[in-house]
Amino acid sequence: KPMKVDYILCYNYKKRRISLHRLSLTSQPELEAGLPEGEESQLSEEEKAMMREEFESGLLEQGLQLERDKESRSQGIGFIRLHVPWATLSREAELQKIKVPVKKVCLLPQKHTCTPGSFLSNLLLYEEWANYGVMFKYQPLDLIRKYFGEAIGLYFAWMGVYTRMLVPPSLLGLIVFLYGVLTVNTNVPSQEMCDDNLNFTMCPLCDAVCDYWKLSSVCSLTRASYLFDNGATTLFAIFMSLWAAFFLEHWKRRQMCLKHAWDLTTVLTTVVAKRVCVCVFVCLFLFLWQREQESLTLEDRLPGYMINVSVVLMMMGVTFSAVFGVILYRITMLSIWSMNPDPEAKASVRMTVTTTAIIINLLVVLILDEIYGAIAVWLTKLEVPKTEAEFEERLILKSFLLKSMNTFAPVFYVAFFKGRFAGPPGDYVYLFGHFRMEECAPPGCLIELCIQLSMIMLGKQLIQNNVFEIVIPKLKKMYRTYKEKDKGGEEDEDEEETKRPKQQWDKDFSLDPYEGLSPEYMEMIIQYGFVTIFVASFPLAPLFALLNNVIEIRLDAAKFTTEIRRPDAVRCKDIGIWFNILIGISKFSVITNAFVISFTSDFIPRTVYQYMYSQTGSMHGFTEHSLSYFNVSNFEADSSPSSTLFTGVTICRYKDYRDPPWGAQPYSFSKQYWSVLAARLAFVIFFQNLAMFLSMLVAWLIPDVPRSLREQVRKENMLLMEFLVQDEQEALRSRLPHRSPTRQPAQTHNTHSHIDIVVEGYLLNRSGNNTNP
Amino acid sequence: KPMKVDYILCYNYKKRRISLHRLSLTSQPELEAGLPEGEESQLSEEEKAMMREEFESGLLEQGLQLERDKESRSQGIGFIRLHVPWATLSREAELQKIKVPVKKVCLLPQKHTCTPGSFLSNLLLYEEWANYGVMFKYQPLDLIRKYFGEAIGLYFAWMGVYTRMLVPPSLLGLIVFLYGVLTVNTNVPSQEMCDDNLNFTMCPLCDAVCDYWKLSSVCSLTRASYLFDNGATTLFAIFMSLWAAFFLEHWKRRQMCLKHAWDLTTVLTTVVAKRVCVCVFVCLFLFLWQREQESLTLEDRLPGYMINVSVVLMMMGVTFSAVFGVILYRITMLSIWSMNPDPEAKASVRMTVTTTAIIINLLVVLILDEIYGAIAVWLTKLEVPKTEAEFEERLILKSFLLKSMNTFAPVFYVAFFKGRFAGPPGDYVYLFGHFRMEECAPPGCLIELCIQLSMIMLGKQLIQNNVFEIVIPKLKKMYRTYKEKDKGGEEDEDEEETKRPKQQWDKDFSLDPYEGLSPEYMEMIIQYGFVTIFVASFPLAPLFALLNNVIEIRLDAAKFTTEIRRPDAVRCKDIGIWFNILIGISKFSVITNAFVISFTSDFIPRTVYQYMYSQTGSMHGFTEHSLSYFNVSNFEADSSPSSTLFTGVTICRYKDYRDPPWGAQPYSFSKQYWSVLAARLAFVIFFQNLAMFLSMLVAWLIPDVPRSLREQVRKENMLLMEFLVQDEQEALRSRLPHRSPTRQPAQTHNTHSHIDIVVEGYLLNRSGNNTNP
Repeated sequence: KPMKVDYILCYNYKKRRISLHRLSLTSQPELEAGLPEGEESQLSEEEKAMMREEFESGLLEQGLQLERDKESRSQGIGFIRLHVPWATLSREAELQKIKVPVKKVCLLPQKHTCTPGSFLSNLLLYEEWANYGVMFKYQPLDLIRKYFGEAIGLYFAWMGVYTRMLVPPSLLGLIVFLYGVLTVNTNVPSQEMCDDNLNFTMCPLCDAVCDYWKLSSVCSLTRASYLFDNGATTLFAIFMSLWAAFFLEHWKRRQMCLKHAWDLTTVLTTVVAKRVCVCVFVCLFLFLWQREQESLTLEDRLPGYMINVSVVLMMMGVTFSAVFGVILYRITMLSIWSMNPDPEAKASVRMTVTTTAIIINLLVVLILDEIYGAIAVWLTKLEVPKTEAEFEERLILKSFLLKSMNTFAPVFYVAFFKGRFAGPPGDYVYLFGHFRMEECAPPGCLIELCIQLSMIMLGKQLIQNNVFEIVIPKLKKMYRTYKEKDKGGEEDEDEEETKRPKQQWDKDFSLDPYEGLSPEYMEMIIQYGFVTIFVASFPLAPLFALLNNVIEIRLDAAKFTTEIRRPDAVRCKDIGIWFNILIGISKFSVITNAFVISFTSDFIPRTVYQYMYSQTGSMHGFTEHSLSYFNVSNFEADSSPSSTLFTGVTICRYKDYRDPPWGAQPYSFSKQYWSVLAARLAFVIFFQNLAMFLSMLVAWLIPDVPRSLREQVRKENMLLMEFLVQDEQEALRSRLPHRSPTRQPAQTHNTHSHIDIVVEGYLLNRSGNNTNP
Repeated sequence: KPMKVDYILCYNYKKRRISLHRLSLTSQPELEAGLPEGEESQLSEEEKAMMREEFESGLLEQGLQLERDKESRSQGIGFIRLHVPWATLSREAELQKIKVPVKKVCLLPQKHTCTPGSFLSNLLLYEEWANYGVMFKYQPLDLIRKYFGEAIGLYFAWMGVYTRMLVPPSLLGLIVFLYGVLTVNTNVPSQEMCDDNLNFTMCPLCDAVCDYWKLSSVCSLTRASYLFDNGATTLFAIFMSLWAAFFLEHWKRRQMCLKHAWDLTTVLTTVVAKRVCVCVFVCLFLFLWQREQESLTLEDRLPGYMINVSVVLMMMGVTFSAVFGVILYRITMLSIWSMNPDPEAKASVRMTVTTTAIIINLLVVLILDEIYGAIAVWLTKLEVPKTEAEFEERLILKSFLLKSMNTFAPVFYVAFFKGRFAGPPGDYVYLFGHFRMEECAPPGCLIELCIQLSMIMLGKQLIQNNVFEIVIPKLKKMYRTYKEKDKGGEEDEDEEETKRPKQQWDKDFSLDPYEGLSPEYMEMIIQYGFVTIFVASFPLAPLFALLNNVIEIRLDAAKFTTEIRRPDAVRCKDIGIWFNILIGISKFSVITNAFVISFTSDFIPRTVYQYMYSQTGSMHGFTEHSLSYFNVSNFEADSSPSSTLFTGVTICRYKDYRDPPWGAQPYSFSKQYWSVLAARLAFVIFFQNLAMFLSMLVAWLIPDVPRSLREQVRKENMLLMEFLVQDEQEALRSRLPHRSPTRQPAQTHNTHSHIDIVVEGYLLNRSGNNTNP
């Protein structure tokens, strides 16, 4: 009967490394150390054997059991199996002060603590969790935690909570969208825009080559815009702020429960935690210790910090240049293609340019994403952080900063800047002298924002999930297998190996290493950004996110169980800095939503018109009111259309609140403009403070620790107390020998509580005579 | 040699209570219990003695030592002295899992744990702390904690931190004020207001009896207003938001240090904590246990909750009515006194009415404060909270809500509502048909807000500190002494007592009971509100608060050491809900300051004028620009002055942005109004988000746990680890008998760290031969 294998010690003589891996699916090395330097590769077989024995005797000393193959190899890679007996584990647990839950009947629950999982649980995980067949089942979190460790357990728990929490906003978003679909025909502004009788002649959208146009020609776009920008959207945005607060609170509670169930309350830092199962391997520890000794002064670090700051700033510059580049592409393409005399080509120009621009944008975002990831790692290494936890935290902050900037910059441009610097007719703003600044499509920027958002969100999720997470690893694996085969032909030693049946650890060793949870979290956090930050302009975002996540969980699960080596089990008490980032995004989203509703959508101008300017109190006349007059004789030299199908145009209209040509100050902002602006700003203040207040209320009303957990902790404390008091009581009784046994209470059962004992003590005294000392 | 007295057991036969007090200055009872009911006062002496012995035998059973007076009394009040021996304390400490700090050399530091202080420390406290002579010395916090317990220790620590933190804003506030004083002569708007050549004829301030007036007549008030509303105020308000964030972070760190030093990290809830030293008195505990058993359902509680909500709403109504009453007083008084034909009386009307109104306001605030305190207690009792901590929390929330509402309502009225509903000339708003709504004094509401703030803040502090905290207790004490003397004449039994020398416990028993920390905290929190919420309008608030607090600390100290019974020592891990209230106030203050700067002060109109309307870019012409025109022929029937000293007035001016009589829509809000409004609102958004962002940055940059504390905790953990490892190592060696003693390292010293041991272990293995099992 073979020994139970918990760990694999791997001698890699070629790379001069010793590393220690957990079973099964050989993991990232738990510990790694170089072979002694200086003696170099001229080590004789005997020397190697001595060295091995030196290491192994240290392990044996600590109480571990070793098993090696009959034919010991001294070239290439050699494996030695290790088993950690129960006694050693218990001793370590005691040293590390690992607590086990206090329970009434403690039938050795410790048996499960720190026991590396078996092959069985890998299969079980695959069947229960890591395939699409069980997509709608709850995740077996305890099993995941036992097999992968607490950090990954928490990640999947978080994913589960997030995905479940996405259901209500998905439904509500869909309802908001459907509300738009159902009411689009009764909406007065859309009707007016589509009404051919309201004969608005609009000013041309580009210089010279563009003609005047009828407002009713953009009817369909206006109707599409209404689907996302109707009265229900504002309420939905407020709901989403509340949802975010609720989600964070809910996760806090869930995390608290998991912390209790998985006994993470005593985890101090990841550094200590990482040593939990590892500390036994004292001999290897020595190397790490020496490495830790090297400490750097501020002067050593300063250049690193400086490079850091400047590179991050430079990268931001790159992001903005990329966005600007795409804008330039759009402007120049539009102006060049507009000169095309073919009227059919002219008609499709805007659509083509917009579509290609968005695709370019998406590609730029995806490519920069990968580059920024690599840069963030490089920068963090330059900083030389003291601990792994610190390294992780700084890396996350930096890459989050760069990646979110990269993803959201083009969206922010469309939401808040596009079309705002175009200038009124007669005073257009030109870029590089002759490219006119781009404007939004006639019904407003919101519909463009919607398109941009949905394209980037969907594109990012589809391409990153499918191409980067599935196709590329497959290609890598294929390449590696190919290369190994190639090599196998060269060395005859490897041929010998192929004759032996391949052990699990041989197979596992060839898998991709685990690269940490950060990319997984990052992907979700960016998605959370899409779900919250611009939800006011794209209420379907939660639905898309939900659909993605249901698949994503199983995709990740499959990756973790079958595609990569078994990850190192890391104990950590929470999801760390990600929670702070979530809080930050939620707070930021309140502000962006407020600005989107008041500045990007037409909600405020419509409301102001209805309650301040409308004669009837209805929306009739809003379109007329929102268009300013322009006298075509005021056009600058080359701005007026060179040829026109319209006759006798003296006045054209444009969307802005400016004084008419016959006013005291023609084309200056009108009183309406200022009152609408004041209303927009007031709405921002109102929305922001309302959402913040409600979020705080939600956070305050929901206790961080669920009542059930509190009860359980209380009960456990009671049990412990009882135990102690019972002990004490017995000690007390043995100290009072003058009490005769007949005065002991007739029945003593083991389950009486603290109070029971107290009462007994009191009753004893009552019935006794007064022979106190 | 008399026994060391730790506790006093007090039999009060008259009131049928047994209570237990700590020395010295007999405290609030630690525990209280009624004598058995039913048998009533017809208890014979023997029965009483038996009862006493029953209780006392329980105490003796638990290992306590008793000492009673020779002549045992069975009438009135009798005292029995208790001593808790070291062994009993240790046992209790073990049961309660009280931890002591891990130190290298542990020379019984536990000796101090839970030992009630002696008379000496009371004297020491008085000398070192509770008098004005040591006003500028640091507080002896450890001594305070040892004598009064952790809760009071934390209060004084918090007071100390708060007071010290007030120094920078006090100085800066003074600088801002001095900046105003120095630049008032160069300030263009003030100069323009005082310039007699700029001949602005202003519209009358009240109907019929008031005349037109010259703007230059309010010159001095304008100059006074500038002292508090200059360019530096805005910066100061932003500074104060940062200061608040910094203060909260600083306190968090200080609290963390205290928690570690005072070993409060393991305190779970106050309920458990309260039992720490008390639990030994098992016999009395029984009563409490039975009381806890009674549990109430939601139905039992519902009426209590309903009354609660309705009473709180009613009280808010009372507060608002009080504010409204004072407004009515002002309006009616002004209109009645203005009819006085005496011109001298007329001139002083406004001043007199304003002053009396503020005094009335102050009195109302003070009286309602006391009433609300009582109501909050009554309401919380109706709710029947489960634990004392819950009771405390609910009481605090309710009384904070009522009291802060009460204190700040009149201030809020002046800051944001006064004068905003008065209407333009010709369209005045009337209350009850013929009282015209009040307006602010001509240079704006800010100066009135300043006066109101300073009066309420100073008045509240002076009157509450001096009258309520010093005079009233003194009076109470005098009354009690007088009453006791009176009684002494009646009962001859008491005469017998006076012959005996009065023991400390006799003296202490006559002191006022301790009434909790809530009133002390409440006073400070309301002051914190003054310091932060309206700091933009009254930059001297921090200075006033600082001056008050330096005295307040010693006043409180003297009260705690000499005026009241020694308080019950309560362990608690932080200042609890007060910290949350502080956070809430700090957040709220950002919003109020933003609104004060943009709506109450003239900062925004001035800035808008300078950058949008001024021809020269300077402030010249601002006064002209900020006054609208009114055609006196448009006055309503009785509004125009009945007699006037001015001749030929056709146009008068008033402070508002409205279109002139010759505009398209006379007296409607002008374009300037809307642009200034937009600027005001934009400033609110800018200020609020900037302040919030900076506060978050401060909170994020300052780690919650100071580095020194982290180091110390790490060191303590190391020591503990070393201890455990050493133990383990020895156990391991004894398990390996085949190792000869010669192979032990030559020198073993007790101080080698964990790693040292590890290294030795490894070296041992290196040098040994390979005789592993």
